[in-house]
Amino acid sequence: MACLIEPKVLKGFRDFLPADEIARRELVARIESVYQSYGYVPIDTPALEYTEILLGKGGGETEKQIYRFADAGGRDIALRFDLTVPLARFTAAHADELSMPFKRYHIAKVWRGENTQRGRYREFMQCDCDAIGDAKDADNALADFEILCMMRDALTAAINEGGDSAAQVKICVNHRGLFNRFLDRLNAQGKSVDILRAVDKLAKIGRAETRTLLAGIAGEAAADEILAYIETAGNWNETLATLARMAGGASPEDERLRIIYGMLEDAGIADSFTLAPSITRGLDYYTGIVYESFLTALPGIGSVCSGGRYGNLAGLYTRRTLSGVGASVGLDRLIAALSSIGGGTQRATYARLAIAATNEAAGGLYQLLASQFRAAGIPCEVLAADEKKLTAFYMSAEKRGIGYAVLAGDTITLRDLSARKNTEGLNAQEVIALLNNNKNRQPQGTIL
Amino acid sequence: MACLIEPKVLKGFRDFLPADEIARRELVARIESVYQSYGYVPIDTPALEYTEILLGKGGGETEKQIYRFADAGGRDIALRFDLTVPLARFTAAHADELSMPFKRYHIAKVWRGENTQRGRYREFMQCDCDAIGDAKDADNALADFEILCMMRDALTAAINEGGDSAAQVKICVNHRGLFNRFLDRLNAQGKSVDILRAVDKLAKIGRAETRTLLAGIAGEAAADEILAYIETAGNWNETLATLARMAGGASPEDERLRIIYGMLEDAGIADSFTLAPSITRGLDYYTGIVYESFLTALPGIGSVCSGGRYGNLAGLYTRRTLSGVGASVGLDRLIAALSSIGGGTQRATYARLAIAATNEAAGGLYQLLASQFRAAGIPCEVLAADEKKLTAFYMSAEKRGIGYAVLAGDTITLRDLSARKNTEGLNAQEVIALLNNNKNRQPQGTIL
Repeated sequence: MACLIEPKVLKGFRDFLPADEIARRELVARIESVYQSYGYVPIDTPALEYTEILLGKGGGETEKQIYRFADAGGRDIALRFDLTVPLARFTAAHADELSMPFKRYHIAKVWRGENTQRGRYREFMQCDCDAIGDAKDADNALADFEILCMMRDALTAAINEGGDSAAQVKICVNHRGLFNRFLDRLNAQGKSVDILRAVDKLAKIGRAETRTLLAGIAGEAAADEILAYIETAGNWNETLATLARMAGGASPEDERLRIIYGMLEDAGIADSFTLAPSITRGLDYYTGIVYESFLTALPGIGSVCSGGRYGNLAGLYTRRTLSGVGASVGLDRLIAALSSIGGGTQRATYARLAIAATNEAAGGLYQLLASQFRAAGIPCEVLAADEKKLTAFYMSAEKRGIGYAVLAGDTITLRDLSARKNTEGLNAQEVIALLNNNKNRQPQGTIL
Repeated sequence: MACLIEPKVLKGFRDFLPADEIARRELVARIESVYQSYGYVPIDTPALEYTEILLGKGGGETEKQIYRFADAGGRDIALRFDLTVPLARFTAAHADELSMPFKRYHIAKVWRGENTQRGRYREFMQCDCDAIGDAKDADNALADFEILCMMRDALTAAINEGGDSAAQVKICVNHRGLFNRFLDRLNAQGKSVDILRAVDKLAKIGRAETRTLLAGIAGEAAADEILAYIETAGNWNETLATLARMAGGASPEDERLRIIYGMLEDAGIADSFTLAPSITRGLDYYTGIVYESFLTALPGIGSVCSGGRYGNLAGLYTRRTLSGVGASVGLDRLIAALSSIGGGTQRATYARLAIAATNEAAGGLYQLLASQFRAAGIPCEVLAADEKKLTAFYMSAEKRGIGYAVLAGDTITLRDLSARKNTEGLNAQEVIALLNNNKNRQPQGTIL
């Protein structure tokens, strides 16, 4: 006998079995539906790009993690590690074909050769949305505000617990520009990148260690001032007044945060938002608002969606200055969060009905019957069955996650599989009517 | 000034701009909806796998085309080149967790370093569905018949021209096993693979050249007999009688084709199917029925969906014999076909409404108004606008593909952008009522 090849997947990669894939797709569909309702449009870009495009000036963590190789033609190519760099390349390439501001979403896989011991995956899906354009169209409070509204709606839809899901979403906002203005006053602007990274670690490493890091970067006195800034707390307007003062008084950045808060109040959603000066985001390209989102039921799981404004997205590929604001939902973290609070879809099939095909020769008639159910919006399977082993058939249909079985002869017998109850003497229309009256018997998610 | 990096994509790879991506997603959604209505469930597998798993015994075209490299840990890995090999690996790995027969679909990208001069892409999407299981559950006429029904429905849904789209779908069926039985009678069974490949080229290279190929493989006399077999024509039963006779009389394969035809007749869909002995499919693993599908409006474009039955899918990875029958829709070819007959979606946005945000400070109120439209199922955008340049705003909204603009003050003015007609003095509910009465003003595809 020939040797078998072990059917294993690479470390950090995953198979999605039907129940997990159905849950993931339903979550994506909910988020996508919100993006679409705001008029955001989908794009797609290649999984593989020239390495030069993906790494740009290169260096750092990214270069270590990227899946990079030479193709058969000797080109230096790599798998995308995020959807932001491809968006920058895409927008530079197609700027003249796109309507500005260009509001796009992109839901796709990315690959990073990360250390899997930290519970990270090497292949995962990102759900990004961004609004970009020339600064005059795209760099305004309307766009900042819109992305915040959309994230609140997307996360609310994702939770979809019934009742006031929105109350479970908390979005923490800050302004990089205002923080940089404050650092300027401390004469620490040149150390901005390192300071931002240190502050970004606060939640993970704690106050004492952050202070040590900051003191090493900017000196003892500055470290204390920075801590005072990022620990400013209170309601939005109070916090903003303190931050503005520490940053040297009125400024366009302070004004932007004030306008955004007015909009949040006017829209009646201010309760979901906090001005949180310790939110800085690790990425260098942010220049304006930055934000992270938490589920109040699960603060410990960390941010499930984050983003911010960047002043010049595609500067590596075009001389046109494209400004924008965007968001990325951490799908895996969100799925983990939902599953730990018992949310999300839990089913292994879309079918509601299994038709027992006890007589192979009648296969055409079973499918004809099935087509009536399908036309009425009832997904159903035709499954081979042994007339003498109907109990085994019922068990197997129930194991598939199906709620009802149909025995078809001169009339139809409908069996409620969990109740083990038969209703006899029906026709197809009566079965449809019974099932449409019992929709709550099976989780009814979006059938895409 | 720093040098720019040219924002180009790799040869054979594509960006999908919004209009193309919307069309592709809608087509996928239609096909997927049919798969789901038959009770097929989605799975996902990694884009990257161990090369050993993807190539198996390896060799041939596949090895030349595969994107293969070593990862940072020195593993020999590659991008999947189809969804069938990953399905085999997946089913072997998870056989005990899956309900058999396992009916799954998988819609995902695959990568092949093909010669792009033949109009092929190096990254493309496959839409596969398969029903697999142990032979006793999965190798039956019910399953063969089901996949044929499902393909007819999927292509009909994809065309979706209104009227009788099904009449535009033609599916040509054959049986590999019956053909092999015939070759056995010719003592040409050992040359089966080469003969099948030669026959598969008939449509492309013509009769004379195919005959030359066949004569080279099996001799002059056999070549003529093979041509006679594959050129047998007539209605299903007549053709089948001829083929069965040439293959040596009654056989299980002949019986299978007879049963399938009875089912097609019982279901009232036999008109869409032809028994076509020249259909052989190039792939080695098919052992039972094979089929290809054509759009009658565009026979020249070739098969838009094909598949067949295989006797042992996962023999490389498990000793369990898994039989199955499947189909793969050629999405790119189908999109090209639809676009050439003016079908498919043609729109660049989901938004039906653009709200003119003429006063930035009122941003919260515009989004509040927008949220009412969204809740009523009307996707809408809030776009910054200059009150003194409303004409420019209207043009820009129309260019985005949006049908209506809203000016919001004490009351709402709704502007029909293509008719250039304003309706004044409305409230939000009246706008919703007007738009819901005018749904036909904008293509209304599935919003996922």
